[in-house]
Amino acid sequence: MIMIKKQPIRPSHLGGLNYPIRIIPLGGFEEIGLNMMIIEYNGKMIIVDMGLGFPEEDMPGIDFIIPNIAYLKGKEKNILGVFITHGHYDHIGAIPYLIEKLGNPPIFTMPLTAGFILKRQEDFPGVPKLEIHRLKKDEVVHLGSFKVGYFRVNHNIPDGIGLVINTPVGKIVHSCDFKFDYTPINDEPIDEKKLKAIGESNVLALLSDSTNAENPGHSLSESVVLENMDQMFQKAKGRIITATFASLISRIQIIFMLAEKYGRKVAIDGYSMKANVAIARELKYLKFSSETLIKPEEVDKFSDNKIVVLGTGAQGEGNAVLMRIASGEHRFIQIKKGDTVIFSSSVVPGNERTVQRLKDTLYRRGAKVYHYKMMDLHAGGHGQQEDLRQMLELIRPKYFIPIHGNYYMLKLHGEIAESVGIKPENIIIAGDGDAIELLSGKVEVVKEKAPAGYVMVDGLGVGDVGEVVLRDRQVMAQDGMFVVIVIVDSKTGKIRGDPDVISRGFVYLKESRALIGEAKSKVKKIVSKAASPEHTMNWAYVRDQIRERLGQFLFSKTERRPMILPVVIEI
Amino acid sequence: MIMIKKQPIRPSHLGGLNYPIRIIPLGGFEEIGLNMMIIEYNGKMIIVDMGLGFPEEDMPGIDFIIPNIAYLKGKEKNILGVFITHGHYDHIGAIPYLIEKLGNPPIFTMPLTAGFILKRQEDFPGVPKLEIHRLKKDEVVHLGSFKVGYFRVNHNIPDGIGLVINTPVGKIVHSCDFKFDYTPINDEPIDEKKLKAIGESNVLALLSDSTNAENPGHSLSESVVLENMDQMFQKAKGRIITATFASLISRIQIIFMLAEKYGRKVAIDGYSMKANVAIARELKYLKFSSETLIKPEEVDKFSDNKIVVLGTGAQGEGNAVLMRIASGEHRFIQIKKGDTVIFSSSVVPGNERTVQRLKDTLYRRGAKVYHYKMMDLHAGGHGQQEDLRQMLELIRPKYFIPIHGNYYMLKLHGEIAESVGIKPENIIIAGDGDAIELLSGKVEVVKEKAPAGYVMVDGLGVGDVGEVVLRDRQVMAQDGMFVVIVIVDSKTGKIRGDPDVISRGFVYLKESRALIGEAKSKVKKIVSKAASPEHTMNWAYVRDQIRERLGQFLFSKTERRPMILPVVIEI
Repeated sequence: MIMIKKQPIRPSHLGGLNYPIRIIPLGGFEEIGLNMMIIEYNGKMIIVDMGLGFPEEDMPGIDFIIPNIAYLKGKEKNILGVFITHGHYDHIGAIPYLIEKLGNPPIFTMPLTAGFILKRQEDFPGVPKLEIHRLKKDEVVHLGSFKVGYFRVNHNIPDGIGLVINTPVGKIVHSCDFKFDYTPINDEPIDEKKLKAIGESNVLALLSDSTNAENPGHSLSESVVLENMDQMFQKAKGRIITATFASLISRIQIIFMLAEKYGRKVAIDGYSMKANVAIARELKYLKFSSETLIKPEEVDKFSDNKIVVLGTGAQGEGNAVLMRIASGEHRFIQIKKGDTVIFSSSVVPGNERTVQRLKDTLYRRGAKVYHYKMMDLHAGGHGQQEDLRQMLELIRPKYFIPIHGNYYMLKLHGEIAESVGIKPENIIIAGDGDAIELLSGKVEVVKEKAPAGYVMVDGLGVGDVGEVVLRDRQVMAQDGMFVVIVIVDSKTGKIRGDPDVISRGFVYLKESRALIGEAKSKVKKIVSKAASPEHTMNWAYVRDQIRERLGQFLFSKTERRPMILPVVIEI
Repeated sequence: MIMIKKQPIRPSHLGGLNYPIRIIPLGGFEEIGLNMMIIEYNGKMIIVDMGLGFPEEDMPGIDFIIPNIAYLKGKEKNILGVFITHGHYDHIGAIPYLIEKLGNPPIFTMPLTAGFILKRQEDFPGVPKLEIHRLKKDEVVHLGSFKVGYFRVNHNIPDGIGLVINTPVGKIVHSCDFKFDYTPINDEPIDEKKLKAIGESNVLALLSDSTNAENPGHSLSESVVLENMDQMFQKAKGRIITATFASLISRIQIIFMLAEKYGRKVAIDGYSMKANVAIARELKYLKFSSETLIKPEEVDKFSDNKIVVLGTGAQGEGNAVLMRIASGEHRFIQIKKGDTVIFSSSVVPGNERTVQRLKDTLYRRGAKVYHYKMMDLHAGGHGQQEDLRQMLELIRPKYFIPIHGNYYMLKLHGEIAESVGIKPENIIIAGDGDAIELLSGKVEVVKEKAPAGYVMVDGLGVGDVGEVVLRDRQVMAQDGMFVVIVIVDSKTGKIRGDPDVISRGFVYLKESRALIGEAKSKVKKIVSKAASPEHTMNWAYVRDQIRERLGQFLFSKTERRPMILPVVIEI
């Protein structure tokens, strides 16, 4: 990938010379998550979101990925500010990894989001203090040529906002994650009036969330979830154990509301759940009476029909609260007959099998399980096709740039835009690292790209695991590995003793003695043969021969291709 | 697991002495797939189905699993026959692996199923000829004390049957995979009349399919799929490329019907798709004119709106036809603008991310993609809650044993049975290897279990990959491995030169020279220290020390735990 050249000066529609606005997504245009975007004008820039992404199936061992900021290297002084739209990890999660490298620019966001950002920062000792500005009601932030306002949206975390970015070229609206919820829980509906007014003020470009662009209809209201969960609370005779994401503050509010309605105490467990509830409650985004909250160790003090347990683990995560409760490893709470377990979140693709197994365990231990397939127990935070159409009709932009999603989701969102009358040539489907240049009369994805290769985080390593390491992991996961060690006398070129074999993940060694024995004599032969005058000491050649011929031999015997690692040691 | 003891003689309800009927599932009671069941009376037995199962996420590299037949060892002569209910791999797939070991007992099945079994057998050279009996209309097979009849069911492959097994203890009905489809395609509706008559003849036990027990309502009719696909055929202006499972003969029939309706040719590609179409057509389960079928290499001879391509790959399988077409690796067919791609099968849990990526590729190359999320393009072959209820109400058994599914699915199916009036104590939720004993007055899961541990197939190896090998694969997939080789002088106990390090999947070695260097000196120190008089030659201890202390060191530096393999060679 080539770094984008300095912006050329172009003739402006006003007759003079003008710079284009340049929009560069560093992530979120080819995947769900990893949201980070640069908006640049005449070399100065603002950033929207700084989130992490989730590893693909072909990235074994990777914890998560973060955006590639190579484009910003050397331009740190030109970053005027970072706007964070809401507190989910795919929007805030990369801050501790990147903000210092970007020169610690000021962050502009809403109070709850600020709370989550600061809480996460505590997990990274040694990082510098953040400069966070909490946005006031209707505040417009002036940064160089940018004037940035915001509008409230509905999502499944409070304090979500979209942005109105006024630039010398025109007005850019960034919807961020949103849905239209006219009956949200402990929140206000999306600011439709403001959106309408924005739409009447000549919007140059709309950037809008495509996560649910393939799902027809309107997204579900949190009130529907409340009603359905209410039915379960009514029916449940024993304890209620609920699992959801720790970031779904609206869902957590519903659970507290119902607990109080039915006179149940709520025991919260899990690090992130406890932390998020504390932050959201302190900032008054979560409302419940102090008497409702109890500790997990107090659960047995109350009768079963007075208890709600609230934890993480609806995705079957290995060490989340629900998994520990189900497997009997939780210190205070075990599943017993009569428990009702409610999974109040949809299953993230890739987790289905794990969740099925978790459900097996829960049923085996006598619980009754409810999950979103049986009833609407989860409302997505992302607008579906009708929400997306509504946003487009309110904002009525000249240009439309679908954001957040795989390519096909952006494409489908583009089709929705076309259906409401946006001209096809004004719809831009871009990819990570693309630079979209806008001048009021023209839009263009320039040829050069910003580097957008994934930066993988694995343990303490950031970006040190690349394709080679991943490919090796994949090969070893498939068929294991086979190390063969040969000691050669440097004087005679002859092999000393038998080769040693270390193999893991290939065959069960104790039951494969004959195979290993044959492999050893194969190697011996290869080495002896290679030790002829013309090849002597050409150990690279010997290693290649071992790799190739031993590989063929093992494949012919097993139809497996372990990674073969020949070690030749001369002494 | 303990092998089940010889059956005890029990007092019969008829006054004399009688044997119980023993039902032993060898698979399919704790998972989807792996269907195989023994029905035993006085030591003689019949087998229902012999299918393969699919590997779980924690079984990297495993191709598939087959049932464990340890219980049948030494009892081969007592196997009177094998009934195969339909031609899907989770019902026929283990035959080539197991039938010879079971003494090649006769197989009773329907003609199309026989065709698929024989075709698969061709892939296994050297296996003995099968003894297959094709069931005639309303045939009842007499095998010892068993009289086995059948009834036609709807599924998404023709010739699916359920079984009526008359035994001295009573009548057992095995539904196998079924749904009620009153408007199937090129097939007759399920034999409801016969089911009703069976229900009126005093059924002792019903065994019924639980795969879709958590899905409310009735399952979709194939006719709905036909109607929806018809709309797409109407709209499509270019080529139509459809992907489905090769075993979904009903779906394949729909595609041919629509192709002929709209004057399109059909190019079939893929080994299994071509083979299945040939078999089903020869046996007259698939109807189309010879002129409709063309070869993939002939596609370009016709105009785009005259073409349908039919292949496998709707799950994003790596080397299936659709993947090769999408990636540009297909010899004759590439995606081009104007193509319509129809995914006509649901996505199997675990394949979502792969399918998303495939859809990205198709959209990028200009295709329009339809899949089942947007419209009902796939009808499951398995009855949903209302179908299951209907079966229970028709058969009205005394005992109910849900089959085919994870534990929670069986449990949910049990709840449906309870809701139609089956007594809770007469509903048996069993697991793989459980022996369910029925005497007309009593049902019991006996204490002993038949061995039911998975037998994994990996390449040519059947059952040679066990937990140890899988765990090693998992560890190496997560954090790679780290082999350290130390050469020690046997006389002095001193290390010779520097240790050698071979590491893969852990860190990128070229960029981690310092870390590797430190690791080497760490190992040198451990070995030198261990070479004190009291430890000399205790190489097991030295290896343990290296494993432990090097592991700690690498974790402290990287927060990764590669598999550490110390090799100490004395010379």
